[in-house]
Amino acid sequence: MYEGAVQDLIDELGRLPGIGPKSAQRVAFHILEADTEDMRRLAESIVTVKEKVKFCQICFNVSEQETCRICQDERRDRSIICVVEESKDVMAVERTRSFRGLYHVLGGSINPIAGVGPEQLHIRELLSRLSDDTIEEVIVATDPNLEGEATATYLLRMLGSIGIKLTRLASGLPVGGDLEYADDVTLGRAFEGRRTLS
Amino acid sequence: MYEGAVQDLIDELGRLPGIGPKSAQRVAFHILEADTEDMRRLAESIVTVKEKVKFCQICFNVSEQETCRICQDERRDRSIICVVEESKDVMAVERTRSFRGLYHVLGGSINPIAGVGPEQLHIRELLSRLSDDTIEEVIVATDPNLEGEATATYLLRMLGSIGIKLTRLASGLPVGGDLEYADDVTLGRAFEGRRTLS
Repeated sequence: MYEGAVQDLIDELGRLPGIGPKSAQRVAFHILEADTEDMRRLAESIVTVKEKVKFCQICFNVSEQETCRICQDERRDRSIICVVEESKDVMAVERTRSFRGLYHVLGGSINPIAGVGPEQLHIRELLSRLSDDTIEEVIVATDPNLEGEATATYLLRMLGSIGIKLTRLASGLPVGGDLEYADDVTLGRAFEGRRTLS
Repeated sequence: MYEGAVQDLIDELGRLPGIGPKSAQRVAFHILEADTEDMRRLAESIVTVKEKVKFCQICFNVSEQETCRICQDERRDRSIICVVEESKDVMAVERTRSFRGLYHVLGGSINPIAGVGPEQLHIRELLSRLSDDTIEEVIVATDPNLEGEATATYLLRMLGSIGIKLTRLASGLPVGGDLEYADDVTLGRAFEGRRTLS
């Protein structure tokens, strides 16, 4: 539709997740009209991130060094590992400031339809970390959806016999939410997981 | 929150229009995990677009040459100019295949709150194009919103005395829409602009 370079940019942008054709066009025109220096910086930061950022050799979180800041941090509790699907999830947990242990990023969840089996995830590496005596608890913090639950079930089967305490994040009503609008499964989980107050 | 290069990329992406912090993070992680060659191409297309794409010296549409493909096209009707706000609008009109004249891209609309007055738009250049005898009609196709209407009114005042036929795109019910859900102003316009069937 557009002349060469503009259309190329719209096409490239449209391949990014969550950017539809209309958004790609809007962003492309913004880039066209924006300050050249700003846009050169954006382009450079894309190249830099691909060159500099690797994955931590211990936990597979994103990192600019061989091991990530969390794995390097001596003040973290090394007896507890929180298993998550993605690096994004590490940041989400970090923001809560309620966890001071280490992480293990699986790199996704078991999803047979998308062709992702346990062997595509960093489960073998998790098992080898657990062979160390220091780890006392593994918190399975995969997403509370079908794939995340399947992954948790698989991990339970693999780790159940090792003798390490295995926990799963609580499911229930979101804080600030409305009981009336909760879906059936969530409300059911909230009942199952009810706590004693007195 | 993240280590250097990842956070830099999230920040740069977050400055693009329509990309919030969550989207910026999602896109950044996609870039991290995507094929390096694909991402180098994306970065290059950003730089290329800034280097190669200029604005047509006649109509201010985006162009890789001094004048755009439409202005160069000998088969276009040179007696009629469609005035739009942005290059995106040129493409929207082109897609309809119902206009074979030339364009003039104003580069925005009059918006006193955002500090955009007539002098920031390519109105002077439009007037100088109209000094040529070949132009018989100017279609004002600015957006049917407050700023677009203000711009149309301003153009009417500027061009009214030149003796060229001035038209405005019809306002009314969108085709495929529902009368019941039309807003009051649109429905009012549809009545004002009603056509005789018999």
